[in-house]
Amino acid sequence: MKKYLAEMVGTMVLVLMGCGAAVSLGCDPVNNQAAVVGTALAFGLAVVSMAYTIGGISGCHINPAITLGVWLSGRMSSKDAGMYMLFQVIGGIIGAAVLYAITSAAGLIGTGANDLQALDGAGTKVTVFGGFLAEMFFTFVFVLVVLGATAKTNGATNNFAGLAIGLSLVLVHLACIRYTGTSVNPARSIGPALFQGGTALTNLWIFIVAPMVGGALSAGVWKVIDPSKKK
Amino acid sequence: MKKYLAEMVGTMVLVLMGCGAAVSLGCDPVNNQAAVVGTALAFGLAVVSMAYTIGGISGCHINPAITLGVWLSGRMSSKDAGMYMLFQVIGGIIGAAVLYAITSAAGLIGTGANDLQALDGAGTKVTVFGGFLAEMFFTFVFVLVVLGATAKTNGATNNFAGLAIGLSLVLVHLACIRYTGTSVNPARSIGPALFQGGTALTNLWIFIVAPMVGGALSAGVWKVIDPSKKK
Amino acid sequence: MKKYLAEMVGTMVLVLMGCGAAVSLGCDPVNNQAAVVGTALAFGLAVVSMAYTIGGISGCHINPAITLGVWLSGRMSSKDAGMYMLFQVIGGIIGAAVLYAITSAAGLIGTGANDLQALDGAGTKVTVFGGFLAEMFFTFVFVLVVLGATAKTNGATNNFAGLAIGLSLVLVHLACIRYTGTSVNPARSIGPALFQGGTALTNLWIFIVAPMVGGALSAGVWKVIDPSKKK
Amino acid sequence: MKKYLAEMVGTMVLVLMGCGAAVSLGCDPVNNQAAVVGTALAFGLAVVSMAYTIGGISGCHINPAITLGVWLSGRMSSKDAGMYMLFQVIGGIIGAAVLYAITSAAGLIGTGANDLQALDGAGTKVTVFGGFLAEMFFTFVFVLVVLGATAKTNGATNNFAGLAIGLSLVLVHLACIRYTGTSVNPARSIGPALFQGGTALTNLWIFIVAPMVGGALSAGVWKVIDPSKKK
Repeated sequence: MKKYLAEMVGTMVLVLMGCGAAVSLGCDPVNNQAAVVGTALAFGLAVVSMAYTIGGISGCHINPAITLGVWLSGRMSSKDAGMYMLFQVIGGIIGAAVLYAITSAAGLIGTGANDLQALDGAGTKVTVFGGFLAEMFFTFVFVLVVLGATAKTNGATNNFAGLAIGLSLVLVHLACIRYTGTSVNPARSIGPALFQGGTALTNLWIFIVAPMVGGALSAGVWKVIDPSKKK
Repeated sequence: MKKYLAEMVGTMVLVLMGCGAAVSLGCDPVNNQAAVVGTALAFGLAVVSMAYTIGGISGCHINPAITLGVWLSGRMSSKDAGMYMLFQVIGGIIGAAVLYAITSAAGLIGTGANDLQALDGAGTKVTVFGGFLAEMFFTFVFVLVVLGATAKTNGATNNFAGLAIGLSLVLVHLACIRYTGTSVNPARSIGPALFQGGTALTNLWIFIVAPMVGGALSAGVWKVIDPSKKK
Repeated sequence: MKKYLAEMVGTMVLVLMGCGAAVSLGCDPVNNQAAVVGTALAFGLAVVSMAYTIGGISGCHINPAITLGVWLSGRMSSKDAGMYMLFQVIGGIIGAAVLYAITSAAGLIGTGANDLQALDGAGTKVTVFGGFLAEMFFTFVFVLVVLGATAKTNGATNNFAGLAIGLSLVLVHLACIRYTGTSVNPARSIGPALFQGGTALTNLWIFIVAPMVGGALSAGVWKVIDPSKKK
Repeated sequence: MKKYLAEMVGTMVLVLMGCGAAVSLGCDPVNNQAAVVGTALAFGLAVVSMAYTIGGISGCHINPAITLGVWLSGRMSSKDAGMYMLFQVIGGIIGAAVLYAITSAAGLIGTGANDLQALDGAGTKVTVFGGFLAEMFFTFVFVLVVLGATAKTNGATNNFAGLAIGLSLVLVHLACIRYTGTSVNPARSIGPALFQGGTALTNLWIFIVAPMVGGALSAGVWKVIDPSKKK
């Protein structure tokens, strides 16, 4: 049970701090690249922080796409995979609720919800297909790093995995915020979308389906290059 | 005695460098996100620097909210906890004094004191309740990372704790500067407020009470997910 | 074969994420330093990510200039060196193709191809000689870090090499983007140039020859200071 | 002899890359905080890079103020201390020469030399006393981190020292660029000043004397808190 609670707390922190920084910095990929860099750092450092806090308890997935990739790689049971995902989503909703409480009390507005971004000042938006491709491919890269850095060959015997995975999430945000604000994590998207509503809610399916497809893709590619596998 | 002096030196460095960078960069959460990112990095890297400098001497708390959380977790004596807090506050005052000497000599103005921030150019301020909530929750996250990363299960046997804790303070600043300039540390707030006066001094209680409440909350949550505890 | 595929995947990720961030952030060394910092972080963190993902498989060169330096230092066979370079170039082309697919679908424009940069708003460009010198010397620094950090004396017995090498690539980009957008890696330049065409293609030779000269220079300098060599 | 050459190469890289990034980014502490953050990262990451490249050869001082602090702490011979400083200064001059060659060829202007900075757009400058204090105190912090992180108690048995020291130099630059462009290292200042001339040369004494005083101060403070010393 402790490991499920750890996943819940970790995902709560990820959403509170990552989305919280996006709101605080006024993340705007068209006009404010400094805010984009700061937001990217926040999401990645939230993972670094949680990796060394709850890593010894649950492995610190805090992302259903990671849990899917790990499960498809045969490294965890089906029951644990389901429970991890459930508690991750609950944690994300709690994180969004706390953030909503803070911002409402302080007088700020925003939830850091994912949505298709504006391409310019005229209001043209990234297409659904473009957003889907971005979320899918960037999740693929992220989960590939997770699977590789925690593999016995690379990371299982050292402690660098948490740092490498967190920094890879900084990387993913630097490339992906421009399209969708970056989800690559359904649990990170569901909570804020519930509080924001509107197109964040109607487009929510993109941020559930695309990351899961990307995570599954990672499991397949890792199987091909995994050195612990024969041939 | 050496460990108390180490806490004093470490907190002096934290205030001198963190607040010093805030002044140097002209930290402004509404108009200058690059300065916010730089200030966040400065506070976090001051902790990283001190963790590997005095970590082997005192454990590098340099923050009464951390000392409270560690004491509530039963990892240090009451006498040490009290002495740590005392020397942290003294160190913070010395750090603010050195910074005041440098800025006065150079012709710059500013102390990096914490205060409720402006929400916009019109002068509307973050509310006291909003600032309190922000300081409380963000300190909770920070001290939770400290308790987790230094727990036997995660960090006590490796050297990543200092890096993870410092980077989590970068994270906390990215999310929190917008509200209060980020304290999450009474010793960081007291020194600069003494030199700045005005509302920095009248609002000082927020930056003492809220972080201590947050630190206590961390101790409670960690107890729930701590894997070294039965069930 | 797995190690060649790992080099292909790693270089694909480097180009997709590094060039992808340059496009997303609108990297512009004259007018937007925040975008330059973000792009520099992206390339470096792509290397950090891949180092801990495929480092245990292929050593994570993902750069023909590194492979040249390693080969000249007598640390790999000629056959492997040739195959590494081939698969790196293929991976870079795939990475550029995926990026092209995402940007086209989303409605963005750009490939992150290397080219001589504008010095000012009037359109004056960095000279070919200046760009060549920059690529040569900055590649020299980068490959020197690779050779040193993976030498038995420093890094072969620990796991810091991946972090140090990736962070040195952040450094190289901070200094070099102003001149050429920073290649220091022929495989990173070939793919995007094929999709971009124009002067990116006619100037492509600079980004093949100069990094290879720089990488060879590193092997020579390392030989002089290598402490495992007598005298 | 190899260790002296390593110090020369390391200091050359520090000046080429750190000052090179300052020139490339157009570092301007009054108007461009993103460039300040980028420059701070460059100097610090140059130290991280070199620490893991030449750390196993010479210990990677690449700074006479560090060598002074280490010598005063009784950790190296007088002959080595003198030779280290000599080769550091030579390396810094070579680094400035290479940077001068690249910038001249490319059509850029600048050497990244240290000097008292403008306080505002009207041309008011930081005072000599203010600049001296800043260099002295910030060097004190930097060298204290070096002495602590490489002490047997903290860092001698692990590999985190290089990372902690490099990140502390990022920190020092974030706080200090506003005053002097940040030297905290005579060898970093001499080379660029020779190529720049003017007030960079007439003010050069500040960037030699103040860092040496700061480094000596660190040795004294470390002696007080050093846990390996009795009482």
